[in-house]
Amino acid sequence: MDMHIENILKDLEKDDIQGYLLTQFTNVEYISDYKPTSFAFCIIKENPIIYASKMDMELASKNSKIEVKEYESFDVMIRELKDDGIKNLAIEPSLVYSTYEKFKDCFDISSKNYIDKQRMIKTSSEIQNIEKATEIAQKAFKSLDILNGHDSESVVSFNLVKAMIENGASKESFDTIVTSGANSSLPHAVPKNKPLEQPILIDWGAIYNGYCSDNTRTMVYSEFQQEIWDIVAEAHDKSIKAIKPGMKCCEVDKVARDIIEEYGYGDKFIHSTGHSLGLDIHETPGFSPRDSTVVEKGMVITVEPGIYLEGEFGVRLEDTVSIDRHANVIGDLPLSIDK
Amino acid sequence: MDMHIENILKDLEKDDIQGYLLTQFTNVEYISDYKPTSFAFCIIKENPIIYASKMDMELASKNSKIEVKEYESFDVMIRELKDDGIKNLAIEPSLVYSTYEKFKDCFDISSKNYIDKQRMIKTSSEIQNIEKATEIAQKAFKSLDILNGHDSESVVSFNLVKAMIENGASKESFDTIVTSGANSSLPHAVPKNKPLEQPILIDWGAIYNGYCSDNTRTMVYSEFQQEIWDIVAEAHDKSIKAIKPGMKCCEVDKVARDIIEEYGYGDKFIHSTGHSLGLDIHETPGFSPRDSTVVEKGMVITVEPGIYLEGEFGVRLEDTVSIDRHANVIGDLPLSIDK
Repeated sequence: MDMHIENILKDLEKDDIQGYLLTQFTNVEYISDYKPTSFAFCIIKENPIIYASKMDMELASKNSKIEVKEYESFDVMIRELKDDGIKNLAIEPSLVYSTYEKFKDCFDISSKNYIDKQRMIKTSSEIQNIEKATEIAQKAFKSLDILNGHDSESVVSFNLVKAMIENGASKESFDTIVTSGANSSLPHAVPKNKPLEQPILIDWGAIYNGYCSDNTRTMVYSEFQQEIWDIVAEAHDKSIKAIKPGMKCCEVDKVARDIIEEYGYGDKFIHSTGHSLGLDIHETPGFSPRDSTVVEKGMVITVEPGIYLEGEFGVRLEDTVSIDRHANVIGDLPLSIDK
Repeated sequence: MDMHIENILKDLEKDDIQGYLLTQFTNVEYISDYKPTSFAFCIIKENPIIYASKMDMELASKNSKIEVKEYESFDVMIRELKDDGIKNLAIEPSLVYSTYEKFKDCFDISSKNYIDKQRMIKTSSEIQNIEKATEIAQKAFKSLDILNGHDSESVVSFNLVKAMIENGASKESFDTIVTSGANSSLPHAVPKNKPLEQPILIDWGAIYNGYCSDNTRTMVYSEFQQEIWDIVAEAHDKSIKAIKPGMKCCEVDKVARDIIEEYGYGDKFIHSTGHSLGLDIHETPGFSPRDSTVVEKGMVITVEPGIYLEGEFGVRLEDTVSIDRHANVIGDLPLSIDK
């Protein structure tokens, strides 16, 4: 049986719970290799099963490593689970309330992060997929003629996505951010139909074999922009160097945050230092002041400090690292981009 | 005060509930014009408020029609809500369990679809946005040279998205489906890097001003493919003609389903006849066998019957209709595409 399922079965046994309900598409994909395109109920138990929607049956039967049944009705599914001896169920923290509500009258329910615990430690083949996604995304970035001075933010964004797909990505891993001038102070800015201003901030990633990549580069032009860039680069470099298994995630965040605070921009660093990624672009744990998860070998997490000056501009520099005895930056794109 | 907020306040008063918590990004956008890019807690009460994440404060302050406060911590937010006299809270059915869990110990919680009830009846300006999104998407489709015989499914998909953006879309409204040959029997097929086979099924839509469009066309080439196409077209046309305010959604589904059943393909129509759309590509109600919602003026719903022959091919034909005294098809793209 699959290692991930075995580990979850051990967790279930320890907590005296008989089944674990998964509905998040990437969780079902992680367990079964079948990524739903419509609703699906995956129940991990001694004999794991997926109730797939009728419209997904062809896909699910082809791809799933575990048994698939066609979902008929909620009542049928509940009856079959009860017939199988299931009295209590663990659920994902991300389960939507309306689904929880249907299960809660039939089973004792408790929310468990068994699946997140598995997903946060990547296997070597998962890391290879993230490396390949990063390679594709960085190659696409290098091929861009960003600075011909004629293209709008939207066009640059579009060309970047196109280049990623031409290089083998299935799609972008999130809405590509190409922003410039004053708008770059919005961490999640949407590309506009206007010519590029200065500085230029690009935050982009590819999906390869289901796995995400994530990078950000900011190209600066004035002395003041460079001054801010240097602070962010110092926070980026020093926090990556500091990462060691055994540290808490919040301690890594603190390394980056302290540097930016020392320079007087603490209140302008308005987000966490990083997030894990994998099948999803945002996974746990994160390098956040509130996350006390211990850093472990096999985690893949972004490091992306930033300084955002409202009405002026923003600078963010982001790499993704995989954790071994220390943090290895994935990809080879320099932080400073030749203009 | 905004009409939508007023209506929700009336619902709250009737149910003797003091606040309504919204976290789904499009729900927050619908109420406030601010679409979160990170978590946000919008509470509709006499003085509505949004707790936005620090990284969204610049965007939220600029766009929101209602008061915005920076989220500091869960404890601070709960204390402020209690100070405001809030003892019970309604939540969205789509709220994730981990957030519900935090609120449930502090307030009496009940799940309510007040916001869905509002969103299912579109204003004339919402309908105009959907019409414009459809116009952009159909214009892009018409500009495609699909049948040059050289392009892969992926390239056709990519060119279609590009043409939508060039025509004014902010992006595609869902992952564009360009599928052909045997793969077209998967309702949510992913475009492949292989030359187009026959038939060709394209399911695509644009986002304009936040609003989605959705259409599907299938181009058939053999006599048998045409026979299936004719059945689906009959189901499409007759169910649209049947739609009248006062009918139940499941009755509309039945019109399409009965036709396909009469021809002996009932078990090959493996999904609902349609779904509402708006700020989201999938909204309620839907033309589904299980949905007894009464059809009303102002609803905007897709009609998309299909027949899927595993290992052979699939045919789906989809238009979006707005409901007045009858159903008006949005856009002017013929069902049958000249090849």
